[in-house]
Amino acid sequence: MLGKCLENVRKNVPLVHNITNYVTVNDVANVLLACGGSPIMSDEPEDVEDITSICGGLNINIGTLNKSSIEGMFRAGRKASELGHVTLLDPVGAGASKLRTDTAVKLMDEIPFSIIRGNISEIKTLALGSGTTKGVDADVADAVTEDTLDSAVKFVKDFAKKAGAVVAITGAIDLVSDGDKCYVIRNGRAEMGKITGTGCQLSGLTTAFAVANPDNICEAVAAAVCTMGLAGEIGWSRMQEGDGNSTYRNRIIDAIFNMDGETLDKGAKYEVR
Amino acid sequence: MLGKCLENVRKNVPLVHNITNYVTVNDVANVLLACGGSPIMSDEPEDVEDITSICGGLNINIGTLNKSSIEGMFRAGRKASELGHVTLLDPVGAGASKLRTDTAVKLMDEIPFSIIRGNISEIKTLALGSGTTKGVDADVADAVTEDTLDSAVKFVKDFAKKAGAVVAITGAIDLVSDGDKCYVIRNGRAEMGKITGTGCQLSGLTTAFAVANPDNICEAVAAAVCTMGLAGEIGWSRMQEGDGNSTYRNRIIDAIFNMDGETLDKGAKYEVR
Amino acid sequence: MLGKCLENVRKNVPLVHNITNYVTVNDVANVLLACGGSPIMSDEPEDVEDITSICGGLNINIGTLNKSSIEGMFRAGRKASELGHVTLLDPVGAGASKLRTDTAVKLMDEIPFSIIRGNISEIKTLALGSGTTKGVDADVADAVTEDTLDSAVKFVKDFAKKAGAVVAITGAIDLVSDGDKCYVIRNGRAEMGKITGTGCQLSGLTTAFAVANPDNICEAVAAAVCTMGLAGEIGWSRMQEGDGNSTYRNRIIDAIFNMDGETLDKGAKYEVR
Repeated sequence: MLGKCLENVRKNVPLVHNITNYVTVNDVANVLLACGGSPIMSDEPEDVEDITSICGGLNINIGTLNKSSIEGMFRAGRKASELGHVTLLDPVGAGASKLRTDTAVKLMDEIPFSIIRGNISEIKTLALGSGTTKGVDADVADAVTEDTLDSAVKFVKDFAKKAGAVVAITGAIDLVSDGDKCYVIRNGRAEMGKITGTGCQLSGLTTAFAVANPDNICEAVAAAVCTMGLAGEIGWSRMQEGDGNSTYRNRIIDAIFNMDGETLDKGAKYEVR
Repeated sequence: MLGKCLENVRKNVPLVHNITNYVTVNDVANVLLACGGSPIMSDEPEDVEDITSICGGLNINIGTLNKSSIEGMFRAGRKASELGHVTLLDPVGAGASKLRTDTAVKLMDEIPFSIIRGNISEIKTLALGSGTTKGVDADVADAVTEDTLDSAVKFVKDFAKKAGAVVAITGAIDLVSDGDKCYVIRNGRAEMGKITGTGCQLSGLTTAFAVANPDNICEAVAAAVCTMGLAGEIGWSRMQEGDGNSTYRNRIIDAIFNMDGETLDKGAKYEVR
Repeated sequence: MLGKCLENVRKNVPLVHNITNYVTVNDVANVLLACGGSPIMSDEPEDVEDITSICGGLNINIGTLNKSSIEGMFRAGRKASELGHVTLLDPVGAGASKLRTDTAVKLMDEIPFSIIRGNISEIKTLALGSGTTKGVDADVADAVTEDTLDSAVKFVKDFAKKAGAVVAITGAIDLVSDGDKCYVIRNGRAEMGKITGTGCQLSGLTTAFAVANPDNICEAVAAAVCTMGLAGEIGWSRMQEGDGNSTYRNRIIDAIFNMDGETLDKGAKYEVR
């Protein structure tokens, strides 16, 4: 079933508008091309509405936000919502600075995001800070492990329900929930954390998957998360003596480029709770 | 003959000022180094005049334009023109948003670019929109193929004549014209479209080639286009099982790094019409 | 001894705040991860103080400065100094434009940098321009070679003493001095100059090494410089037929990822004068 979601991306070639950080933006673009999507980047407030209008989805990542790009995020987000496009928020660094926390919370309050993707600490920050999500019990551990899994599953379900979005919390174990069911995903490798931007890449990928599978967004998000993790496993299996994180980055994107629905269905490791 | 143009780049080490998008800027810098040139990036309005003054050429790419960098483009463009430097415009996304179209058209109207490089749809937008080029018949198909070649050749010649620039339209078949003759180039591979920024890289490369061959700009542009396409062919021939678009990106830049004039002369596939 | 500095980076996982140019920022992040550190990027003036507060060190690189990021540099620099963090200045292009020279000089005058790293021409610009360093005899050649070594060693010692910082001048021969002793380092390969950003990467790496070795900053800087140069040698030894500068970039970062203290101690080529 998840494999079908990937095949739909290759068939539909979703155009994704990215307002993303300048650290990992090139990798985000190449990952979108690798999965069969098509990227456009634009953050200038006077440009974003036109650009987002010709796309199918919008990926907002606050990793290197500035005053101008923040305005771009709000204008693009409003326009994309108006048009019924898929919208994703990646609240990079929420909790690490007041500006990031405030921006992420205000974006969530104003824009009805289809998807929110972050690590557990970023998502907890949103759960505590946002008017629309206050009241969610965010008293969960700062890492999702087998030991903390039950409370984390409850948390992501509650948060997704309050936020009215599909929520993906990624880490050692990944969780994807629409408030009702929760995919618990065990693909990936710890070494992926030694590459900058695998999270940012996943946000781009996830947006493309959701655009290409509009009737099945929760499953599409789970498929994107499994694709990224499985690509991390396949990429690692191709590493040779002397290779390190820079080559690993290339091999992960290459693995997505070569992945088909059957490979994904065979390699995806998840349960639904 | 084209090989000589490449050799001149390696001999002269042209310094190229790039005001380019943050998506592909690293690849543009590495391609410029690969061909024997030297890159400098600067887009701050108060910095660009000094920087462009010490360079031989200016590459303006509007891929992630913003209010500040637009001002930088105009100031750098005017200064570079004053100094008689090679100037290139890459109108990324012209036609996709009002800001991009307006900026590209105004840049063309104000700055006498030596070279304009884009895809057919971007160039058609310029032909329709600019005071200096209005009157060119832009009623050509949106892809240059063997079927549409005759009308595309006529279009690029007319546009180049009106614009007073060497114009390169790149796609499945590439066209380079100075208004008089037209190089029809059949190097490259479709898979290059699966890498972000091969067009941006080509604009950087083209600027370097033109700076190093000032008396022969049309031929220099054709040589740059053939170099990029041939590198795409050589890079592809080195792909191994499991490699994808990320590795392909590296192999293309590597192929430029290793290319000499003889290889280019042997591999270039073009006719002049 | 230098190997111990690298091991301390892997043990302490220093968090480094980078205000760096958008050309090479991705490589800076991956190099920091490769050596065992952790990168954060932020240049928005309203964000930088919070971000730098949670880090151990601050790397300021003026490669693509703009009005907003310049303000960010000053605010972050003041905050990091207040907190006693390691601070590094990489004055990219000082001497090439008035804005770059003025910004680098003002930063030096206002912020007591722990480390300054640049090429000989950038460092000479600082020596001539800054109130705190005026009076240093900058009448040295524009390249550090065996022929000019004596005067260059004297210059870097004088400049380091006046500036009250550890100074690294990198080139064919690298010099690292705290005003007293001077490490003369002969690692590296000329081909590293064919990759964009090896200097920027070194500045990130150097900051991480200094944060992880607070009682031994001069030695830590020398260790970082040797690590980068040795990685250039190891990376080159892994190059295969047809590889070029893009693959070389990956192999250098890979070599840092795989380097341990013993390898560094064996491969480091330096004398202390």
